[in-house]
Amino acid sequence: MSSSKSPPVSKSPPVSPLAPGRLPEMPPVAGVRLATAQAGIRYAGRTDVLYVGLDEGTRAAGVFTRSKCPSAPVDWCREALSGGAARALVVNSGNANAFTGRLGREAVALTARIAARAAGCNEGEVFIASTGVIGEPLPAERFEGVLGDCAGRAEAGGAAWTEAARAIMTTDTFPKLATRSTEIDGTRVTINGIAKGAGMIAPDMATMLAFVFTDAALPQPVLQALLAEGTRTSFNCVTVDGDTSTSDTLMLFATGAAGNAEVSQESDPRLAGFRAALDDLLIELAQLVARDGEGARKLVTVRVEGAESDASAHRIALSIANSPLVKTAVAGEDANWGRVVMAVGKAGEPADRDRLAIWFGAVRVAVEGARDPAYSEHAASAVMREPEIEIRVALGLGSGTARVWTCDLTKAYVEINGDYRS
Amino acid sequence: MSSSKSPPVSKSPPVSPLAPGRLPEMPPVAGVRLATAQAGIRYAGRTDVLYVGLDEGTRAAGVFTRSKCPSAPVDWCREALSGGAARALVVNSGNANAFTGRLGREAVALTARIAARAAGCNEGEVFIASTGVIGEPLPAERFEGVLGDCAGRAEAGGAAWTEAARAIMTTDTFPKLATRSTEIDGTRVTINGIAKGAGMIAPDMATMLAFVFTDAALPQPVLQALLAEGTRTSFNCVTVDGDTSTSDTLMLFATGAAGNAEVSQESDPRLAGFRAALDDLLIELAQLVARDGEGARKLVTVRVEGAESDASAHRIALSIANSPLVKTAVAGEDANWGRVVMAVGKAGEPADRDRLAIWFGAVRVAVEGARDPAYSEHAASAVMREPEIEIRVALGLGSGTARVWTCDLTKAYVEINGDYRS
Repeated sequence: MSSSKSPPVSKSPPVSPLAPGRLPEMPPVAGVRLATAQAGIRYAGRTDVLYVGLDEGTRAAGVFTRSKCPSAPVDWCREALSGGAARALVVNSGNANAFTGRLGREAVALTARIAARAAGCNEGEVFIASTGVIGEPLPAERFEGVLGDCAGRAEAGGAAWTEAARAIMTTDTFPKLATRSTEIDGTRVTINGIAKGAGMIAPDMATMLAFVFTDAALPQPVLQALLAEGTRTSFNCVTVDGDTSTSDTLMLFATGAAGNAEVSQESDPRLAGFRAALDDLLIELAQLVARDGEGARKLVTVRVEGAESDASAHRIALSIANSPLVKTAVAGEDANWGRVVMAVGKAGEPADRDRLAIWFGAVRVAVEGARDPAYSEHAASAVMREPEIEIRVALGLGSGTARVWTCDLTKAYVEINGDYRS
Repeated sequence: MSSSKSPPVSKSPPVSPLAPGRLPEMPPVAGVRLATAQAGIRYAGRTDVLYVGLDEGTRAAGVFTRSKCPSAPVDWCREALSGGAARALVVNSGNANAFTGRLGREAVALTARIAARAAGCNEGEVFIASTGVIGEPLPAERFEGVLGDCAGRAEAGGAAWTEAARAIMTTDTFPKLATRSTEIDGTRVTINGIAKGAGMIAPDMATMLAFVFTDAALPQPVLQALLAEGTRTSFNCVTVDGDTSTSDTLMLFATGAAGNAEVSQESDPRLAGFRAALDDLLIELAQLVARDGEGARKLVTVRVEGAESDASAHRIALSIANSPLVKTAVAGEDANWGRVVMAVGKAGEPADRDRLAIWFGAVRVAVEGARDPAYSEHAASAVMREPEIEIRVALGLGSGTARVWTCDLTKAYVEINGDYRS
């Protein structure tokens, strides 16, 4: 742990070469106001706390890490979700408040108390997330005064969103934002989201966090169902190194301020547009995380088709996306399909070696369990030199499909995470 | 694939700093004779084929990769094992004969034909293993003449064992050998083993191979049971990067030449000594593989205790040993126990965050779900600077235990596997 090190000054690592060219223009979301501050949790010279005020009537949905050792804020949010209502969100960077025992629970309770006073709500309507170092007590008393001040000056405007995305960064090299606009039964609604994380990973840190806000009016069960479903094809399909955080948190807040007619079933066709917009936004945020994977120079999309089921396809796709040998081959721009075969084989899912076909980009490199007779090393190598690469595997067994995103495994990843004290 | 590259000349990479100081003296194993040759499969200027002649009456046992895309030789050995008898083993390096379709099956059949002629036995008594590049046809016709010559000059002596271990190396930086002597019911028996592999991994390659020979007389079912059981605590407990090969093969041959009384039950107490010696030898060979992990500078032993079951402990231990974040922290000599918590949490096995205790070497860094009050960064850092490190986790739930070996994840791993064509 870096507990005894001096607090890291905000460094400016080079921005990932896979970062989008520009940040999106974020419209306001009615009922949502944001402010950031320097609470001095760990970093010096940068914001490290985000406060989001939510209008009365806001409903919350959330999905959280499946880690058996979740952080104290994850435990808190799971509990608070049972109420279904939200009035404030507090996110800090620099300390994950994970594996902190009794002190961790006390820090969360204190944070909720301070935030509830600032927002004028019950503690059970406060949601909390923390990202940063594991195992160190979070000095939550530093939020005293800070959150009240944030509540007073919170704003709805576009710049506040960018500042929010910046305040929750740890080893991220760029802020991650996305926005969509759609309609529910003729009423225009907005969805804004922010995220942080370099996959499930970060040096001395742990956390992938994402927060999505909409002015749509939606019952909590519908909100939860839409979020859980959207997660399946977005955040659960992104991996940098397979190291699931203790703190992974994705929340969706709906203020209802758009005034659309409430729809009580998530399967209602009037929600088709909203569902599509939400899914799309979640995918964009998830991709942004892969694009900021530590040390990443290439974005890899892995598609698996013809599996016995979607679940089977998903496990095979993750086996490929998490394989160090596949990821180092991508880093080396090596069209090494033998390693893709290896990763398919080790997934433990139904696969028939002699029906397998593999593509890098549009180039088929293997078919019917052997090298493609028309294989061109030249064409495959050209694909591998691109910054964005698709690896596609057809199993020929059924109709199960999956798509996951990852990045390459470079020496910079080892350097960033190795700490190399000496 | 490196199919279009010129054949790699035998390079001499620096020997792993974790290599043993000297090679063991290998005694003969009665009924076993070995020879190596240059068949020119892929490498120039080095031996690339091992022929082992086995006396009549030799019984064989084997365990193989669980990959759903196994190599052609693995399919062959599984089939040949049903006969239970062995007269010859042929192992080549440079080409794994994996994902080679019909050509792969033909190459295996041709190899068996040539070897059977050389050994004067049935094709079903020939066992075959291949290690090297995936997806390229194996030119088995090059064994013609070579295997017959090998059979003529095969020897039992110590140097032949070292030469055998060298001939099957691919990216290994040192030959891997181990020997044990024990008794069965008063009769002295010898066990010799050789292995290759840098874990489950190798650049452009795939394969962990190990072959163990004994002069003990043991029925095939007993042999198979002892081998399967020994694998559980040895080779199934070693990982370099979690990338399971298409070709993993571990075989045990028993010539019976020692003339001990046959024992028909593996649970017979007269086999206690043999079982212990075999297990010990398998562990030594497995550790040698971890010591030669690509780019490895540190050997890591992960011990898990207090799990709900041994199987649960094993999965948690592998989750720690395969975590890129844990492995890069070890490379960086960083006593980062937060990442161990993360790896325990992501394993999906029963764990109670608030009962967890973690040690690096003899230094307890965490207890009862939080940092050890007596934690000393200085003491923990001293442990991390050692070349061999033990990470111990106590779950406090039950009596399940496990022990696995791995190595650190260094920039050299990425370099070796990245190929960095440019």
